[in-house]
Amino acid sequence: MQEANQIAFDRLISARPVLDGCGKAGERIPGFRRNLILHSGPPVEFAAMRGPHRNGVIGAALFEGLADSESEAVGMIESGEIELGCANDWNSGGPGAGITSWSMAVLTVTERNSGTRAFAAPIEGPFGGGLGGWGVYNEKLGENLRWMGETFAPLLDQALKAAGGINIAELFASGLLMGDEEHTRQVATDRLFLSSLIDPLMNSPLSDAEQLLLLRYLNSCRRFVHHVGCASAVASLKSAANVPGSTLITAMGGNGVEFGVKVSGRGERWHTAPAPTFRGRCFRPSDSLDDAAPWLGDSSNVEAWGLGGMAAAAAPALLAERAETPADGIAQCTEMAKICFGRNPLFRIPLLPETCTPAGILAERVAELGIVPKLHGGILSRVTGGQIGVGYAGAPLECFRKALL
Amino acid sequence: MQEANQIAFDRLISARPVLDGCGKAGERIPGFRRNLILHSGPPVEFAAMRGPHRNGVIGAALFEGLADSESEAVGMIESGEIELGCANDWNSGGPGAGITSWSMAVLTVTERNSGTRAFAAPIEGPFGGGLGGWGVYNEKLGENLRWMGETFAPLLDQALKAAGGINIAELFASGLLMGDEEHTRQVATDRLFLSSLIDPLMNSPLSDAEQLLLLRYLNSCRRFVHHVGCASAVASLKSAANVPGSTLITAMGGNGVEFGVKVSGRGERWHTAPAPTFRGRCFRPSDSLDDAAPWLGDSSNVEAWGLGGMAAAAAPALLAERAETPADGIAQCTEMAKICFGRNPLFRIPLLPETCTPAGILAERVAELGIVPKLHGGILSRVTGGQIGVGYAGAPLECFRKALL
Repeated sequence: MQEANQIAFDRLISARPVLDGCGKAGERIPGFRRNLILHSGPPVEFAAMRGPHRNGVIGAALFEGLADSESEAVGMIESGEIELGCANDWNSGGPGAGITSWSMAVLTVTERNSGTRAFAAPIEGPFGGGLGGWGVYNEKLGENLRWMGETFAPLLDQALKAAGGINIAELFASGLLMGDEEHTRQVATDRLFLSSLIDPLMNSPLSDAEQLLLLRYLNSCRRFVHHVGCASAVASLKSAANVPGSTLITAMGGNGVEFGVKVSGRGERWHTAPAPTFRGRCFRPSDSLDDAAPWLGDSSNVEAWGLGGMAAAAAPALLAERAETPADGIAQCTEMAKICFGRNPLFRIPLLPETCTPAGILAERVAELGIVPKLHGGILSRVTGGQIGVGYAGAPLECFRKALL
Repeated sequence: MQEANQIAFDRLISARPVLDGCGKAGERIPGFRRNLILHSGPPVEFAAMRGPHRNGVIGAALFEGLADSESEAVGMIESGEIELGCANDWNSGGPGAGITSWSMAVLTVTERNSGTRAFAAPIEGPFGGGLGGWGVYNEKLGENLRWMGETFAPLLDQALKAAGGINIAELFASGLLMGDEEHTRQVATDRLFLSSLIDPLMNSPLSDAEQLLLLRYLNSCRRFVHHVGCASAVASLKSAANVPGSTLITAMGGNGVEFGVKVSGRGERWHTAPAPTFRGRCFRPSDSLDDAAPWLGDSSNVEAWGLGGMAAAAAPALLAERAETPADGIAQCTEMAKICFGRNPLFRIPLLPETCTPAGILAERVAELGIVPKLHGGILSRVTGGQIGVGYAGAPLECFRKALL
């Protein structure tokens, strides 16, 4: 097991996911089908789905024109005419509901050592989480999504091709030195990403107007690189998957009902437990953690890759938001190191000058020590699906125990 | 004195310098003359000038067409036909030699509370320090400088007008949270600045091609905001000047021979001492600190404003470059606080969660305690004038003592 974990760990920390394209999900994700709608986390019956997921798959059915009304969509989903799938089973996965359907734009990432491909829908510009993340759907969101698939995706695709791809592992390594932990905070990294496209754009076939359109749109997106990071985490983790006997965690995600993990040695098999609840802070006093949807989203793959909660000390501004100090961030990194195989030498943190971020969560360490991965994340309302705060959740111990059986 | 210092300090920490324009020095700096060449630091005889300053003023004479040859330039400078001036006496001042002449572009900054205007030549794009900072002059540098005055300056001017100016105090406050101390490191702040112009550009009269030209040029400049910071420091410090009885430092700069300070209560009067030498690290093993020019440049105003050496703990990556730890950075901030009137509540640092950066150096504290301001800076060769390393110098105790007499 130690040997198997060493192999998986080495693959994980040497992973170099490169953002190299953007296009419609149906045209980029191998085997995608017109009647398929992906969601985050492990499998969940439609009837059991909570707000963001339920609203999200119905919204996607309407957006794709698969159904003309909510009730028709529900019928088609219940009958199986519209198929639901776990994004992670398709090497895909973004924050929140993780809704992805045929016409939606997806970012494409290639892990350079293994050639592993992964995907995530980009953030929906002025609409933030939008349909993909928050499961909210209306006409304006649909228009924007269509524009993203038809116009934005080809622009970004050309820019990325002119750039020869953007190495996201290196980008995030820089961001970690600038106060971002790359899950909930990406303030500097967003700007580094934008900056890295400006020169290549000059050598792209895009017109001046198209270049400016792309730059303005990217500049208007808060946390654009978070979605890039989700796809990059999937690519990196999948490159460490399928090592026989390895207990290294290669996927973590929640569907709002259950939370699931995959371990390297058991391939695509999910091991699940009830989804954890959130701790943290709501933006408005009128909102309460009681309204929070239990953890949902595949963004927890960012922690499995070795960022976010594993790199808490990188982002003192984020810690301050939840009334914690830099010392608390350091303590969190130390705690997380106990359940990890090692550390990622690429991911350095100013507050940990003599070491780097923990990486490679081992199911048996979690199970033995009872220390669970701390997942940073946005808090979604289980009522409206919109984001109401920021905080963290502990991945449930039970699914790590099950993974060992 | 305490009361006078409180007044000066309050003005300093409430200073809100706004970058609001760019144009030729001759057209922007009040009273400028065609035969005037500014340099950094206190006054210095031409015959005594070292490499960067001597080469710089000769280069500027050639660039302006005031002389056709080096020997002619020397003659005209010696005869007084070409005038030399201290940049700080003209509310101007940039890094290094600080050479500024009529046709060179200058950034214009207005301190919002007092209306104080200040100036600094922008970094010379692909040529880095170039003529203005390193005192290096050749045909290519001259072409670029001409392009900056004729083309770049009006573009940036329009962009800044469309933006209604960029609040540099707030920009730097954000940068401090992203690993920049705003003297030697501006990696994140450069990108924040670029990002802040993208939306306003849309509302400027600039064509798409002009907008892209400007964005590409700014994106190609390393430490563009450093020069912005130098002008902002001058504007902020001058807004705290001329408070009778105040011993608050309102200017610090070196000409490679002498280092000088001004104190609020004594207006524009320089108090000087021999320029300090550098500690730090050369980029190449073939270079040595023995080749380093003693401190030159007005960038030390950044420390007087309350950044750079005052905010050392903000930039762990920079500390690591000189083999220091975050703890060393915190110790440096603590040490600097001893010679300051107080702290600037706007300038917070992740490593100092319970306080903020020291600000308002008091001449008598320096003189009494024998603790001198630690100035971060690039190390210039006294031979070639080019940058050979990065480090710091201590402002000489003697000039603070003199200022008290």
